[in-house]
Amino acid sequence: MVETVQWTDAGVVMIDQTKLPRTVEFMTCQTYEEVAHAIRTMVVRGAPAIGVSAAMGVALGVKQADPAKLDGQFELICSTLAGTRPTAVNLFWAIDRMKRLYASVKDKPIAEIRAAFEAEALAVYREDIAINRAIGAHGAPLVPDGKVVLTHCNAGALATAGYGTALGVIRAAVESGKKLEVYSDETRPFLQGARLTVWELQQDGIPVKLISDNMAGHFLKSGRIGCVVVGADRIARNGDVANKVGTYGVAVLARENGVPFYVAAPISTLDLTLDSGDQIPIEERPGKEVTEVFGVPVAPEGTLVENPAFDVTPNRYVTGIITEKGVATAPYEESLTRLAQEK
Amino acid sequence: MVETVQWTDAGVVMIDQTKLPRTVEFMTCQTYEEVAHAIRTMVVRGAPAIGVSAAMGVALGVKQADPAKLDGQFELICSTLAGTRPTAVNLFWAIDRMKRLYASVKDKPIAEIRAAFEAEALAVYREDIAINRAIGAHGAPLVPDGKVVLTHCNAGALATAGYGTALGVIRAAVESGKKLEVYSDETRPFLQGARLTVWELQQDGIPVKLISDNMAGHFLKSGRIGCVVVGADRIARNGDVANKVGTYGVAVLARENGVPFYVAAPISTLDLTLDSGDQIPIEERPGKEVTEVFGVPVAPEGTLVENPAFDVTPNRYVTGIITEKGVATAPYEESLTRLAQEK
Repeated sequence: MVETVQWTDAGVVMIDQTKLPRTVEFMTCQTYEEVAHAIRTMVVRGAPAIGVSAAMGVALGVKQADPAKLDGQFELICSTLAGTRPTAVNLFWAIDRMKRLYASVKDKPIAEIRAAFEAEALAVYREDIAINRAIGAHGAPLVPDGKVVLTHCNAGALATAGYGTALGVIRAAVESGKKLEVYSDETRPFLQGARLTVWELQQDGIPVKLISDNMAGHFLKSGRIGCVVVGADRIARNGDVANKVGTYGVAVLARENGVPFYVAAPISTLDLTLDSGDQIPIEERPGKEVTEVFGVPVAPEGTLVENPAFDVTPNRYVTGIITEKGVATAPYEESLTRLAQEK
Repeated sequence: MVETVQWTDAGVVMIDQTKLPRTVEFMTCQTYEEVAHAIRTMVVRGAPAIGVSAAMGVALGVKQADPAKLDGQFELICSTLAGTRPTAVNLFWAIDRMKRLYASVKDKPIAEIRAAFEAEALAVYREDIAINRAIGAHGAPLVPDGKVVLTHCNAGALATAGYGTALGVIRAAVESGKKLEVYSDETRPFLQGARLTVWELQQDGIPVKLISDNMAGHFLKSGRIGCVVVGADRIARNGDVANKVGTYGVAVLARENGVPFYVAAPISTLDLTLDSGDQIPIEERPGKEVTEVFGVPVAPEGTLVENPAFDVTPNRYVTGIITEKGVATAPYEESLTRLAQEK
């Protein structure tokens, strides 16, 4: 299993996801600022992996902070990491968790504070893997046997501490003996599907075919897709789902063709403070992600671009939301709130 | 105005659309086999431009054929050109037109036969430009003023002898004084939107923004798109439309969001022999178009691919089909048959 992000004595080590699959290269972030930069530039991406990285970034910052100015530095560490990417709520969830820890340990000796932060970051990491396994276990029975599963972007081991959310469901279905093939949308502009999902599934020996994003409709209409499974970056209280741009289109096309559309995400992706997906901030990324592919221009000079990184899928297109505590179905306000409150 | 394909004494000259927009390079096809190769490798593409190129290819073949074996060679010329690409019916329409000409002139002196073929190829070329102007005139009133027009692939001057079908409608709307902005889907894998549509519209000074294909749903939902206009490669009698892969998805998302979806195409794109779009052959293109961008790999080694070049949009998603003879609306079997029969 690929190690997406690891806590080491030398710093936070990440596989550089901007270079995959052509180059498998690990990067060591030696400061919390470097962790923030890695999140912003998508060296690490995927909502759960961003949460884990942020927790480790805070721990790294606390490890290096001046004990005499810890209050101020802790604030700066948290605000720097929180300012990296706006849409994935797991980032803020992880920072809030570290803030609660700080409140409970701040008056202890610095060595104890640092040890507590390191332990908490490792707990976030380990819990994430366990959560993904649980998501897989809840989701596997939903996947039709002997059909193609369509996924968009990468909600795999590379998007989490390990195993994956959407790909965790697929892995668990395969482990349970189901015969599946995966169609992976390439997921322009960042090509997470082509570069990351195909690579991950190849390593596991799970049959996978790559398609352009705009082919999803054709195959959903063809009858060969048994279900769609995707991840999520933020889920509002009513079940509206923000995820990688293009997810909304896949969801509409799935419903139009009677294909179940599942979202796999940890409870930490829920944002119960938001009434609906309309309130989820959508990150705009640099235009060069669209006009260049690995530095090669694909459009004329001076091309103007829109590059929203996410879109919002209204709850009515979502067949079920697979969490570590079970599967939520409509009405989502009720089912999600109940799952979130479960111990 | 860019010259997509031209008949010259040296041969059939084409702008090499595989190299645009980074390199503006013209290629001279000196034999009909070279014309066939150019069509197959998408040096020239777009249903009407393929039709014009095929007509010129037949004329070039007849110009160079051995007069003593003309019957056999004419058959070979036509079958070679017909074997290049299966979906765009304009190819077969143009070849059939040249076959009818052959039947009417085959017993004349060779010089007269050759002159007749050259004249017919030039007529196909000139008529195509006039047809596009007429499509533009019929379509311009349908385009909402002050809104964004979304288009997919390139149905522009580069897809025709000049002016364009879908982009002809946009050009005519702008010429009529409407204030428009165009959003161009990049149109993976061949990137006709990024490489060709953006380039064409930039040259005309029509405001254009590039988006990834998977962003179309997000913007259709946003309310800023006034209408969608696309071209077509083949239209069945019932109004089902084969066009560049991804068109079906855009059409479904347009209807889901109450945005009119128009298809702009000449009558030569109609295939009244087919009851429905299910009977339209869908070309499968090489996988490398998906796994490589300008020769740069974007997926791991050994990635398996599906690469259907077209999809079929059922007639119920089509608001209107804009032809040179007027705009067909549902029920299409009636409206298309009537337009096809009009003089």
